[in-house]
Amino acid sequence: MFYYIIDILGTIAFAISGVLVAMEKKLDVFGVLIIAFVTAVGGGTLRDLLIGIRPVGWLNAPIHILVIVLTVILAILFVKQLKYVRKSLFLFDTIGIGLYTMAGVEKGIAADLSPVMCIALGTITACFGGVIRDILCNEIPVIFRKEIYATVCILGGLVYFLLIQFPVISNTIAHSLAILTIIVMRILAVKFKISLPNIYREI
Amino acid sequence: MFYYIIDILGTIAFAISGVLVAMEKKLDVFGVLIIAFVTAVGGGTLRDLLIGIRPVGWLNAPIHILVIVLTVILAILFVKQLKYVRKSLFLFDTIGIGLYTMAGVEKGIAADLSPVMCIALGTITACFGGVIRDILCNEIPVIFRKEIYATVCILGGLVYFLLIQFPVISNTIAHSLAILTIIVMRILAVKFKISLPNIYREI
Amino acid sequence: MFYYIIDILGTIAFAISGVLVAMEKKLDVFGVLIIAFVTAVGGGTLRDLLIGIRPVGWLNAPIHILVIVLTVILAILFVKQLKYVRKSLFLFDTIGIGLYTMAGVEKGIAADLSPVMCIALGTITACFGGVIRDILCNEIPVIFRKEIYATVCILGGLVYFLLIQFPVISNTIAHSLAILTIIVMRILAVKFKISLPNIYREI
Repeated sequence: MFYYIIDILGTIAFAISGVLVAMEKKLDVFGVLIIAFVTAVGGGTLRDLLIGIRPVGWLNAPIHILVIVLTVILAILFVKQLKYVRKSLFLFDTIGIGLYTMAGVEKGIAADLSPVMCIALGTITACFGGVIRDILCNEIPVIFRKEIYATVCILGGLVYFLLIQFPVISNTIAHSLAILTIIVMRILAVKFKISLPNIYREI
Repeated sequence: MFYYIIDILGTIAFAISGVLVAMEKKLDVFGVLIIAFVTAVGGGTLRDLLIGIRPVGWLNAPIHILVIVLTVILAILFVKQLKYVRKSLFLFDTIGIGLYTMAGVEKGIAADLSPVMCIALGTITACFGGVIRDILCNEIPVIFRKEIYATVCILGGLVYFLLIQFPVISNTIAHSLAILTIIVMRILAVKFKISLPNIYREI
Repeated sequence: MFYYIIDILGTIAFAISGVLVAMEKKLDVFGVLIIAFVTAVGGGTLRDLLIGIRPVGWLNAPIHILVIVLTVILAILFVKQLKYVRKSLFLFDTIGIGLYTMAGVEKGIAADLSPVMCIALGTITACFGGVIRDILCNEIPVIFRKEIYATVCILGGLVYFLLIQFPVISNTIAHSLAILTIIVMRILAVKFKISLPNIYREI
């Protein structure tokens, strides 16, 4: 139940990030809705396609569509007020990334894939909604230019696979600690403006 | 047989719309062919991937490839004459959208999905060939900026699911009326320049 | 074993072409890695999705991920030296295209698809990694503007299906001759600057 609520909050945060990018591009209502939708479910969809889960998850999860539609309507109506909840949005988004990453890792394990592939799938789940959003809006994906976003997903996945090597640590605890790692690292990275050293310099 | 001919006409119209966009971008012959192809089969391909139909439809439908290749050759040879058939093209395209939408709805029903998801799949079938075309040509998809295109697909799907609630209406009739709704609404929307109110204004 | 080594060399060449495009776009380390990855495995992934092979190939081939990661690290470290191996890179890339094309054709045959579809899948395998690379980097795919790249794949596929009509020619020989055809034609096309006649002229 607790996870379920957080999952919905993550979906909302992802959908709002889609709304904001789409409105910047002056898309119409339908365009804004589609961009919000792909931002929220795109990563999981790509993961399901790659693993071969069919149909892809959201086709059997009407609750997500409902949440996304409501989010888009409210976000368009109250777009000016969105800046007042910027901090909450960042928190939801960060929690969403943590949950999405571990959801992807779990699906990979369920499909008998190796840890490296599970981590790749977790990162895809968390990050590729944003990649598809940016491609549809004709931008180079932002996560290819601010790498810390994807890096924390990879590190979170590593933490999980390290922890489950210890028999004393239950799966639930390893799972929760991995999510916590992602959340804490992302908050720290943003707070202290940590990023990998840039190899070029734009003029 | 009747549906079959209309399906081919819709494919031709979609392929030609691909040729026109690709030629505007000065792509070479191979590029024009690929863009025409994805415009015509892209929506159905994405639908099949999401549902999990395998292999995707066109891999077992050589007739579509043949029609698309011939269309591309003729469209390149007679590109100057295309403007004289502009009205027929619009009609084929509109009929194509109607048919593609209901084809997507049907595949959704066959996969036991809920009405909302069937309508989503119908809209994807009709619209996402154009979305992939625009992405490959490095444009923000035109349907995200002129929403009436997708909106009529959604309304057509709703009409279908409303009609089949009445036991006196056979499936075939509901099906045909839904397609007719899409065609009539699109023609009216274009004739009277109806579009959803724009929430921004470009300067 | 011989094929295996060449496959790895092809993967390296494809990954490096991804690194070069990504660095031109000033992507960060993570972005460069992802672009290298999709360039190398994107075509095969799309092919597997279209046919319905699940999970897609690379999820069970950690060696490819390892090779790509090492290639990216070395390519970033020695980016200035890459120009000295330009000729070798072109050769690897050309051999890679030949192998990828025939690998795609084979998967199509294994899925009982018609020759036309097998050739289409072979061309997708060889070319669409580059297409996805260019889309992610916000460019119109280069192969839609320099068609000879895809054309040699199609011709190679045709050669294969022509040769296996003759009972005296074994499958292995037809396979090898098709790969050779692709390699020789591409080298000749680049050497003599052959390309299909352009139908437009940019000002």
